Amino acid sequence: MNELLSGLGKAAALAKYELQKLTADEKNRALQAAAEALVREKSLILDENARDVAEGEAKGMSVGLLDRLRLTEERIEGMAEGLKQVAELCDPVGEVLERFERPNGLCIEKRRVPMGVIGIIYESRPNVTADAFGLCFKSGNAVILKGGSDALRSNIAITDVIRCSLKESGITGDAIQIIPATDRAVTLEFMRLKEYVDLLIPRGGAGLIRSVVENSTIPVIETGTGNCHIYVDESASLAMAIPIIINAKTQRVGVCNACESLLVHEKIRERLLPELAKSLKEHCVEIRGDERVRQVIDCIPATEEDYATEYLDYIIAMKTVSSADEAIAHINRYGTRHSEAIITENKENAEKFLNEVDAACVYVNASTRFTDGFEFGFGAEIGISTQKLHARGPMGLKELTSYKYLVRGNGQFRE
Amino acid sequence: MNELLSGLGKAAALAKYELQKLTADEKNRALQAAAEALVREKSLILDENARDVAEGEAKGMSVGLLDRLRLTEERIEGMAEGLKQVAELCDPVGEVLERFERPNGLCIEKRRVPMGVIGIIYESRPNVTADAFGLCFKSGNAVILKGGSDALRSNIAITDVIRCSLKESGITGDAIQIIPATDRAVTLEFMRLKEYVDLLIPRGGAGLIRSVVENSTIPVIETGTGNCHIYVDESASLAMAIPIIINAKTQRVGVCNACESLLVHEKIRERLLPELAKSLKEHCVEIRGDERVRQVIDCIPATEEDYATEYLDYIIAMKTVSSADEAIAHINRYGTRHSEAIITENKENAEKFLNEVDAACVYVNASTRFTDGFEFGFGAEIGISTQKLHARGPMGLKELTSYKYLVRGNGQFRE
Repeated sequence: MNELLSGLGKAAALAKYELQKLTADEKNRALQAAAEALVREKSLILDENARDVAEGEAKGMSVGLLDRLRLTEERIEGMAEGLKQVAELCDPVGEVLERFERPNGLCIEKRRVPMGVIGIIYESRPNVTADAFGLCFKSGNAVILKGGSDALRSNIAITDVIRCSLKESGITGDAIQIIPATDRAVTLEFMRLKEYVDLLIPRGGAGLIRSVVENSTIPVIETGTGNCHIYVDESASLAMAIPIIINAKTQRVGVCNACESLLVHEKIRERLLPELAKSLKEHCVEIRGDERVRQVIDCIPATEEDYATEYLDYIIAMKTVSSADEAIAHINRYGTRHSEAIITENKENAEKFLNEVDAACVYVNASTRFTDGFEFGFGAEIGISTQKLHARGPMGLKELTSYKYLVRGNGQFRE
Repeated sequence: MNELLSGLGKAAALAKYELQKLTADEKNRALQAAAEALVREKSLILDENARDVAEGEAKGMSVGLLDRLRLTEERIEGMAEGLKQVAELCDPVGEVLERFERPNGLCIEKRRVPMGVIGIIYESRPNVTADAFGLCFKSGNAVILKGGSDALRSNIAITDVIRCSLKESGITGDAIQIIPATDRAVTLEFMRLKEYVDLLIPRGGAGLIRSVVENSTIPVIETGTGNCHIYVDESASLAMAIPIIINAKTQRVGVCNACESLLVHEKIRERLLPELAKSLKEHCVEIRGDERVRQVIDCIPATEEDYATEYLDYIIAMKTVSSADEAIAHINRYGTRHSEAIITENKENAEKFLNEVDAACVYVNASTRFTDGFEFGFGAEIGISTQKLHARGPMGLKELTSYKYLVRGNGQFRE
């Protein structure tokens, strides 16, 4: 095994025992101190970030990627603010989830405990370094980070500042470690560091997530891909439908909870589509529709591929359906189990949609954009899970914990 | 993709939508009917099993494996009884886990739902076919089974009887499907049937489990490996310690919750070990001890390898420690996160052990053999999870479910 990785793994596996014993107060004080340290040491972080940005420019990195990479005083203050917010959240560790006694007198307590060591693999934005640390630390976990190669200097600088601050708080710096290497072989080996890492979370594009799912032997939580639909039922209120669709499609097009496909009941298409198309056009959204959509509005023909595509762009696919059942079947075929919405005044169809659509979050008369840890009131978010094992939808602090059974007896053995 | 597997996957993915809509009553009646069908069709099952057994004998299969493979009228009645017991358990599907309202008026309900499609890969015993079906079906899931090649005819016969019975109950037979092939390539491909299967559970030896963890792209729950310890603290009651150790070591040596290593506080070794060694000897258990153990009793020297070994045999490793801390550190180093016990009259050490040992089930003054779905009162068990993601320890019906968020609004969109 790669010595670098096994060294990081061993250090994290030791740190986790120290972290699981910390009280909420100790963790909160350390988070506050780390937040202050980030602001105090911002010139150091900005200097390292400037070197990353200069290298990115020299390599011809796109303006969009450079913007994601670039830190400013304001962005560093945002990271610090994030850590302070996490300090204010309830500590999930130690919660008694169940307690019961067996006929033989055994008292069984199911208690929430940290996961242990969490690995996070992410792409450009260096602020994830601080955000991920905050959530993992507050939930009692050690974290090993593997950031994007373009942001390596920035990530190391942020990690160093937090490690120093933790030590000043009397806590092991190994609560946060970053892999100081960028080659793919190391990333692949990290995905197999099962001896030391309890959970691996990829944060990034579809390619990164696929690679982690394919290669990891560590349990993974798959996040992010969202081919989200809105279905406008026959009985929908247009005054409700149009603002929701515009919001879900255009408020931020590059996010996983944005709407990618619209399903329209055939009996409402003539009332809905002309006004909707006008509004979408004003927001520069390209429409790709099926034949029955194109009978009502002028747009590009949609293909099967369109229905399967997460555009993350100013494009929307539209398809006409004859019933809520047809809409549900389409979503269950093409959706990615992320967020799906129905707009309807028909209670029966609303309940049918809620029950039968297979997705993390299913909405009636609201925008899919609400699938988010902050919007759900979790106070923070490490990602949106699109798998069914362990956690589904927005993942906050609780979703970074496991549990154990504590069994108290007085001499019981099995008959 | 293998056409056989994609056909099974598609059928299961369709069946899951039908199964998730079934009421508890409908499922219970179908389970009762399937139980009766197994008994009614037992001669068919016994005939097919006899062919498997004959082939096993011809291949020179060991007496132990032949015994696990062989079905009898009694064992078929046991399988039927198992299905009836599952029918009597509470249906976990539909339980509202949380319900909260956001300041913007969105009502969010977190509801327990089936996992969808569960894959199970298991070894010799054909009764797993019926047991696994019962638990998956009651929790609203379709199941695809891959049994051991030696039991293929038996497994197909059991599956066919259940499928026919389901159809007579008006339910899709595709609730249970078995892969009618035994070659390794098909098994490997099954582990990558991610498009259709939501969860894969391996049940069997360490080699099978390792292969699934290495190769699966489907989320896995790792089950079974148990290098379990009992630590006898300085203050332990010998009257409690000895029966617990004898039980944990000898009641059934081949199970994952049996005790493999004993840790003894140095100050109790002279009182404990002679009597314990005598009793272990009466149960034909071989002792392998460290130097300080061998100063008190006559036994084979223990090596580092002994401490890391899950014997599943009439062998126990013994090591002397100077404190509860040393015992905890040893367990956290060599344990497999399954079941660990302390025998003590010292409350402080008991709580320290409960808090600091990293395992699914941690015991004070009781045998590790209680780590079991029936003993925990879950009424059934699909396996013992030794990972931290999703489920830990005994897994019953609830552990075969996921959840989804149902969000009801009245026109909300994101600001």
